[in-house]
Amino acid sequence: MEDTEKYPRQGLIMVVCAPSGTGKSTLISRLREEISNFGFSISYTTRAPRGQERDGREYHFVSRDKFIAMRSRGEFAEWAEVHGNFYGTAIKPIHDMLGEGKDILFDIDVQGALQLRKAFPNGVFVYLLPPSKVELERRLRGRGTDSEETIVKRMDNALGELKQAHEFDYWIVNDDLGVAFEQLKAVYYAGCTKPGLRPEMVADMINTWRDDV
Amino acid sequence: MEDTEKYPRQGLIMVVCAPSGTGKSTLISRLREEISNFGFSISYTTRAPRGQERDGREYHFVSRDKFIAMRSRGEFAEWAEVHGNFYGTAIKPIHDMLGEGKDILFDIDVQGALQLRKAFPNGVFVYLLPPSKVELERRLRGRGTDSEETIVKRMDNALGELKQAHEFDYWIVNDDLGVAFEQLKAVYYAGCTKPGLRPEMVADMINTWRDDV
Repeated sequence: MEDTEKYPRQGLIMVVCAPSGTGKSTLISRLREEISNFGFSISYTTRAPRGQERDGREYHFVSRDKFIAMRSRGEFAEWAEVHGNFYGTAIKPIHDMLGEGKDILFDIDVQGALQLRKAFPNGVFVYLLPPSKVELERRLRGRGTDSEETIVKRMDNALGELKQAHEFDYWIVNDDLGVAFEQLKAVYYAGCTKPGLRPEMVADMINTWRDDV
Repeated sequence: MEDTEKYPRQGLIMVVCAPSGTGKSTLISRLREEISNFGFSISYTTRAPRGQERDGREYHFVSRDKFIAMRSRGEFAEWAEVHGNFYGTAIKPIHDMLGEGKDILFDIDVQGALQLRKAFPNGVFVYLLPPSKVELERRLRGRGTDSEETIVKRMDNALGELKQAHEFDYWIVNDDLGVAFEQLKAVYYAGCTKPGLRPEMVADMINTWRDDV
């Protein structure tokens, strides 16, 4: 479905946020299966590698000093501290991938998404919604993995995140998974036609209009 | 592909512009065939009805005085004078259709599109591009309907319109018709998930979060 690339486009940044239990992981996996053009952004972290994790594959494992130095040089598009460890997305490798025409899909929380939005205004920012509070709670309980306390906490977090849903470009309600997936694909393919991804195309046409025969 | 409409959405305004010869009419016809939810906006005009044209079907035929009165009351989302006649799109019937959930597809020139953009900021504005100047000229000649003088004029107009392409949300290059059609559909379906089309959805969820059981 890509056009024939006389004017190759830059990669698209697609960011998907959703309250826990909305079905985001399923939808993102299906999108990665269907669209081969997504590269992976490898985050930096100060936490220690676990099990089979290897530096440069799951994460770039760095010291706290190095992370803080990078952060103070403004090298992160977004960063956060979780349970005492830092996590961050470096800007330069993202720009390199975009320049090669690779798209990047971010599965991230709302705070990270809003930081990415500032660094990458050409991205598309999608907020996935549960059909209702009742249905979200039903799905969380249905997973059978969370304690009552965790479920209450997830529902509270969901409420907090919903309050920032208006910052996003698209709202997709995951009521029927198939419908939500088609909508997510449409947002991706539409995003690929944004002018910012081919900044020179029209200017080049105009510049050569008089002498192009 | 619509979601199940617990929160019915408002209609979407979709505006498609393109230089003459780009294939816009073909693409728009196919889109109307495939998507049944497009209503028709009936323009007002001061020109006389022709042949089988009926008032309220092809156009609302009105006097010059009435048109000017409507215009001075700010009732038009866009208007233009062509060969001494006025043409305009009234705002109220559009809002009524959008409120009923009907989408509206506008096939209009760039000037009209930019006026519509101000009246309907939630719309999606698509600019269709030819793959190149050479190909556009080849297509115009291939139609065999235009004189050399007309072709030169159309090419000049195309250049003028290209200079405003940066005002649009999406650029679709019509190189392969099938690809361009898929992209146009994606833009439509993505547009249907814009927050502005369900302005109350998230606010309602938040308001009922505490007591919704």
